[in-house]
Amino acid sequence: MMDKLPLSRVYRFIEPGPVVLVTTVQKKERPNIMTMSYHMVMQDGIPPLIGCMIGPWDHSFRAIRATGECVIAVPTVELATKVVEIGNCSGADIDKFEAFGLTPVSAKKVKPPLVAECLANFECRVKDDRLVDRYNMFVMEVVEAWVDPERKERRVIHHRGDGTFIIDSRVLDLKKKMVKWPSYVQ
Amino acid sequence: MMDKLPLSRVYRFIEPGPVVLVTTVQKKERPNIMTMSYHMVMQDGIPPLIGCMIGPWDHSFRAIRATGECVIAVPTVELATKVVEIGNCSGADIDKFEAFGLTPVSAKKVKPPLVAECLANFECRVKDDRLVDRYNMFVMEVVEAWVDPERKERRVIHHRGDGTFIIDSRVLDLKKKMVKWPSYVQ
Repeated sequence: MMDKLPLSRVYRFIEPGPVVLVTTVQKKERPNIMTMSYHMVMQDGIPPLIGCMIGPWDHSFRAIRATGECVIAVPTVELATKVVEIGNCSGADIDKFEAFGLTPVSAKKVKPPLVAECLANFECRVKDDRLVDRYNMFVMEVVEAWVDPERKERRVIHHRGDGTFIIDSRVLDLKKKMVKWPSYVQ
Repeated sequence: MMDKLPLSRVYRFIEPGPVVLVTTVQKKERPNIMTMSYHMVMQDGIPPLIGCMIGPWDHSFRAIRATGECVIAVPTVELATKVVEIGNCSGADIDKFEAFGLTPVSAKKVKPPLVAECLANFECRVKDDRLVDRYNMFVMEVVEAWVDPERKERRVIHHRGDGTFIIDSRVLDLKKKMVKWPSYVQ
């Protein structure tokens, strides 16, 4: 199930630093998925902007360059093994949606599909590509966002850069300390 | 205690998405500290590059603009309350090192101090500021890196954007799945 997520809440899913999936689709080709953990919130206001490191060594790079679109999907811990496997094979060789038993769902504003099994999905368009040639960095604008309100598993995973991942644990509530940024606290 | 960390290992501390501290110092002023959680690995090779979102609303912005230097320090969970308090007051008003009982240690290649209480410290110089005016984004180059090899507490914290933080839990070892990226696995 996917409810619309207000764009003002997108940063809540990206700021903690989860490994994410990125889907793309190029004319006449099957949709593809890659794994990404070099990303950051660049703007938490409207529109949400997400900085993404995607390079020519990624099969998805070509599709993003050609179409200017992707979906960033946030998987949770039960998908960890698939997330790593997706990051260790190429869409040039296989149909990753099929190979990993993931369900593509039509997005509303972009052509790449949402991933039904993920906690949240963000439809993105390339907002700025002036750092791509130098750093392989895309500034993505989130144009539509979805979240699964019913799912109980909400723990994301964080890559430590070596094939080991940290699983989210308990939440520490320090809201009362956010005196300078009260608008961020709900 | 601080051992030198090979620059090729810096991304290991940034990729998981921890909240970090950033120290700065401007001529004749006391050193300052800010809290940052919008950042990403931009290059995991040499030199390590870290994308950082720091805006004019941060007191540290002025110092980074003026000096081109900062230290990125990685705190662990026992510092969580201080990390949030540091992010909710301004260096324009108080001496944060003194107020929060943190110990500045001289860096080797830059003027801003390391934070003795942190797990890792990265000495940084601004490598690219062409996205600062548009997005408040600095590309930082890590020129020297330090890690405390003796400390047992290594769990970092991840901000969920609302004053609540997720604490690292257990590690999931999926190294055997990293077939495409064997050089990253040790």
